[in-house]
Amino acid sequence: MKHEARVLLDHGSGGRASLRLIQNIFLSCFGNSILDSLDDAAVLEIEGRLAMSTDTFTVDPPFFPGGDIGSLAVHGTSNDVSMLGAEPLYLSCAFVLEEGLPLATLEAVVASMGRSLKETSLRIVTGDTKVVPKGAVDKLFINTTGIGRLLVENPPRGRRAEAGDAILISGTVGDHGLAVLSKREGMQFDSPIISDSAMLHPLVLSLLQAVPDINVLRDPTRGGLATTLNEIAQQSAQEFVIREEAIPIQGAVAEGCSFLGLDPLYLANEGKFLCILPQSKARQALDVLQAHPLGRSAQCIGEVRSGHPGRVVLQTEFGGERFLRMLEGEQMPRIC
Amino acid sequence: MKHEARVLLDHGSGGRASLRLIQNIFLSCFGNSILDSLDDAAVLEIEGRLAMSTDTFTVDPPFFPGGDIGSLAVHGTSNDVSMLGAEPLYLSCAFVLEEGLPLATLEAVVASMGRSLKETSLRIVTGDTKVVPKGAVDKLFINTTGIGRLLVENPPRGRRAEAGDAILISGTVGDHGLAVLSKREGMQFDSPIISDSAMLHPLVLSLLQAVPDINVLRDPTRGGLATTLNEIAQQSAQEFVIREEAIPIQGAVAEGCSFLGLDPLYLANEGKFLCILPQSKARQALDVLQAHPLGRSAQCIGEVRSGHPGRVVLQTEFGGERFLRMLEGEQMPRIC
Repeated sequence: MKHEARVLLDHGSGGRASLRLIQNIFLSCFGNSILDSLDDAAVLEIEGRLAMSTDTFTVDPPFFPGGDIGSLAVHGTSNDVSMLGAEPLYLSCAFVLEEGLPLATLEAVVASMGRSLKETSLRIVTGDTKVVPKGAVDKLFINTTGIGRLLVENPPRGRRAEAGDAILISGTVGDHGLAVLSKREGMQFDSPIISDSAMLHPLVLSLLQAVPDINVLRDPTRGGLATTLNEIAQQSAQEFVIREEAIPIQGAVAEGCSFLGLDPLYLANEGKFLCILPQSKARQALDVLQAHPLGRSAQCIGEVRSGHPGRVVLQTEFGGERFLRMLEGEQMPRIC
Repeated sequence: MKHEARVLLDHGSGGRASLRLIQNIFLSCFGNSILDSLDDAAVLEIEGRLAMSTDTFTVDPPFFPGGDIGSLAVHGTSNDVSMLGAEPLYLSCAFVLEEGLPLATLEAVVASMGRSLKETSLRIVTGDTKVVPKGAVDKLFINTTGIGRLLVENPPRGRRAEAGDAILISGTVGDHGLAVLSKREGMQFDSPIISDSAMLHPLVLSLLQAVPDINVLRDPTRGGLATTLNEIAQQSAQEFVIREEAIPIQGAVAEGCSFLGLDPLYLANEGKFLCILPQSKARQALDVLQAHPLGRSAQCIGEVRSGHPGRVVLQTEFGGERFLRMLEGEQMPRIC
């Protein structure tokens, strides 16, 4: 029987085996002049106001069409930093590994993180690795915490949506959630369903350069488009009206959801964002989005109006209206 | 049977139940003007160069004499930031919770974090909560990532130890490791063994104000004093000579270790640090340390000398010498 190298408790002890793991796996994929110093903390040079965000990634399965827990951990946190109108610059990265995890799995995840970083000037500057006894964690969890530099004076915030604003979405919804779920359940569709996991900073940067006065940016991850719209409507104390027919959904995703009895408006996205801005700037913003590979399917999906604070109204394709509510209960187990 | 409220998968869905958890538990203990905005990222004002550090806390048992996973998560990360000669200012906090965890446990941990923050100007400014199915995590894990402002021009670094420097330890070693282990194993000693978990910033600040030219600061957590000395000796490519009889160890800890066959030099500490600085400043630094409640038992335990790079030599109480090596293998399961 061929020997397969595995993660041992010793790899998290802080001793010699930890150092080998850091040098052989982490530094070879993440290495940079800041991380290489291997101090307990990293020294960073950064000017101006900062954005900071954290996220722990626990995805089952860890590898899925269009990404894996590693690419997700880089994209997800850097996107949250981007949503404040900031340029993501530095990430911390903390692994919790299950004793017995194949080292090849860890290597594949770390390599994927390294590839995701290559697209950008983002760097992993400090890290931590814990190994817990078999059964104390499901394979591996990754926490990333990101900091970035604010690019605009008045950053987009969830509380800033104003009556009269247009509501844009940068592309199709539901892709990531359905991709992970169908991989987990071993389902096959006629067209493959691929996660939209992507680093949004380049698109956000183009947008902010053209249209600096954006009121809200937010990526509809957990809970999907519907939940995120409700969050923003509540934070801004405004009413949102959304036109169902304007929401971009890939045909294969719509079919898959229909087959499984899922609502794509509640599925996680990992490469899309909502943009809420004055109506007068909406056309210009849409042009910028649609001209970029990550925003080709961008659409204006509705408006902010003064009405019942915190309410999201969906105008259905059949001419009716219904409330679009926050996710209550789990539509499905963990997918992001 | 009395109903006991528990963590549900729904609490991590990003929907309505997540919001209730955030508002009822997290904001009531952590609330501040930055966190309260509940955006995906926090906006921070900070001047000058930064230190950033991350740590995930997985401790069994979560409550132990002298602390718990919550106080540890605040102290541990802020101490790592302090070790770079920085003032810890902002923390992110990411929970991974096991479905079915009693809400009372979470509340106790969060309240403890809130109390640990009260001692300081440190604030939790952004967070994340994931709930994973029962069995996918052991109770709860907490990641904290901290950023702080550098207080000195030339920050202490692991690579800066120089031949002739004195090596100080700020107090007794082994307390935390033995406290957690004895609680886990249900052992009783004549004198109670209490974790030394503490926020080191006030002591570090006093020290840096009196003696700004410190070459290395590092807290000997996982792997204990022996492993941390080896790390620094390697990073600095120097030889360290340590006098065994100078290492402060509480009597009860020495006895407990002797009884259990453990070496206190390899047990984790959570409220102590090593300080390496020019011999000419050692007396002044010791005076500052010993005048502070957190540094009463501080001692000079050895010197840096040019010799075999990366080697740590222990001069034993019997007049002999032996190599003090890095931890190889696990002395015991997870305790920090």
